[in-house]
Amino acid sequence: MTAEEYRREPPTDDPVQAFVPGHVTGFFSVHPHGDPRRAGSRGAGLALTEGVMVELHRADETAVVLDGEKAEIDAVTRTLDRLGVEARVAIKTPLPVSAGFGVSGGAALGTALAANALFGLTHTENELIGTAHAAEVEADTGLGDVVAQARGGVPLRLEPGAPEQGKLDGISVSNTRVEYVSFGDRPTGEIIGGNVKKLSQAGERALSQLLEKPTLPRFMALSRRFAREADLLTPQVETAIEAVRDVEGEAAMAMLGETVFALGSGLSDAGYEPTVCEIHPAGARLS
Amino acid sequence: MTAEEYRREPPTDDPVQAFVPGHVTGFFSVHPHGDPRRAGSRGAGLALTEGVMVELHRADETAVVLDGEKAEIDAVTRTLDRLGVEARVAIKTPLPVSAGFGVSGGAALGTALAANALFGLTHTENELIGTAHAAEVEADTGLGDVVAQARGGVPLRLEPGAPEQGKLDGISVSNTRVEYVSFGDRPTGEIIGGNVKKLSQAGERALSQLLEKPTLPRFMALSRRFAREADLLTPQVETAIEAVRDVEGEAAMAMLGETVFALGSGLSDAGYEPTVCEIHPAGARLS
Repeated sequence: MTAEEYRREPPTDDPVQAFVPGHVTGFFSVHPHGDPRRAGSRGAGLALTEGVMVELHRADETAVVLDGEKAEIDAVTRTLDRLGVEARVAIKTPLPVSAGFGVSGGAALGTALAANALFGLTHTENELIGTAHAAEVEADTGLGDVVAQARGGVPLRLEPGAPEQGKLDGISVSNTRVEYVSFGDRPTGEIIGGNVKKLSQAGERALSQLLEKPTLPRFMALSRRFAREADLLTPQVETAIEAVRDVEGEAAMAMLGETVFALGSGLSDAGYEPTVCEIHPAGARLS
Repeated sequence: MTAEEYRREPPTDDPVQAFVPGHVTGFFSVHPHGDPRRAGSRGAGLALTEGVMVELHRADETAVVLDGEKAEIDAVTRTLDRLGVEARVAIKTPLPVSAGFGVSGGAALGTALAANALFGLTHTENELIGTAHAAEVEADTGLGDVVAQARGGVPLRLEPGAPEQGKLDGISVSNTRVEYVSFGDRPTGEIIGGNVKKLSQAGERALSQLLEKPTLPRFMALSRRFAREADLLTPQVETAIEAVRDVEGEAAMAMLGETVFALGSGLSDAGYEPTVCEIHPAGARLS
């Protein structure tokens, strides 16, 4: 790019790409609110190097394509609606959908960042994160992935909601290998729309205990206890977690999906054939 | 690393490394407070891919080495004091010192992150950022670099202070080349300890005008005006900025150093021989 080109303000006619890390939540509590920017979750999770790539093209009418197939992702169309634009959205991800990796939240956040550049909307990052968060909450597909994916690392969601209201912290970690296996999907809305009192109590307890000593092994242990206390374990998930424990590894269940994630080579050591990635140290960004 | 090793909690006996991006501030206002965690600056800047690498070793007595030479970096020793530990700190950076790149803040923040891992201190990231910020404020070497370097990208410092009190936002940008030349140093304390009323008024005005339309070219234009209004321009800096403007580029002065930074190839196009880097999209991290 020449110096002169930097003087142009957006918009642009070229397609714009954004990358958003995946995110697995280990435990959480639900915090509903009439204003979707104030609704959300508290909890903790891991941002992953495997994530969601979003490419936005100018188009007369909004259309969403996921890994080459036409798709309906409510959080994405709601994000474009909130921004007042129409676009063709091409989403690519190696992550399984509806399995607890934040694909819908990542698609919404990537769409917000890319739309801002494509159309020269001049929103700040907090505003774009808030827009995607609100769209995701209204779509009933997530409560905390967007703000965590915007941050990266090991996000602690101390207070729920978009950046204006929410509050984040993080556990400081070095490069950390993460493995995962997924046994099937589980729609988020079914759980977070139901009776979540026991779940939220368990989530609040886990967060306050993690903050007493915020380390990665403790996050994993508290996540395991949360899945049990919230009655979310399925037989396959429980078996995989136990198998990793048997080889002295750290594993937990991804909320909300039938997915187990482990630190290091936990799942490989236990005889599974997991996908391998790392904790992603950075948040979502234009590429 | 094996699964078993992940079950160990820190501390470790091995040296620990952290990387902190450099940071140039384009404009700022000064916000003093008796509590160094509440003191700070508002303003805007760029995080840079050139940064500060900190390696921490266990040692009986604190010692600091900068690029192989014994050094006194008050912000670093104050960070260790606040954390209650002693260590040998080896700092490497390609950035010029006392030239407006946040080397002292980066060294303090990297020290905090590395000390947390080396000694198993189990502080959260916000706590470590707050510790380094307070140390930097007390050392009189900076007011806003630490929080900006912890965030990465194009940090907007909306409210001053450590994470507990401060508030950040950012301008969303794609990969962006940055060039810089440095003509000499300028101790930060001299300026931020003096009469800063006019400077702070100019900084507040620039921030509120940037928030009306937060784009990178506007950040550069407002930074240029700030340097003029705050009477900080030196002849060499003014000449370089004008030369970049003459080739239709975007350049501004780094606060506080005798340094000019430009977007794209602005300084090269103007006949300078700048150092080339990019906006660093991520914040400080253990490596």
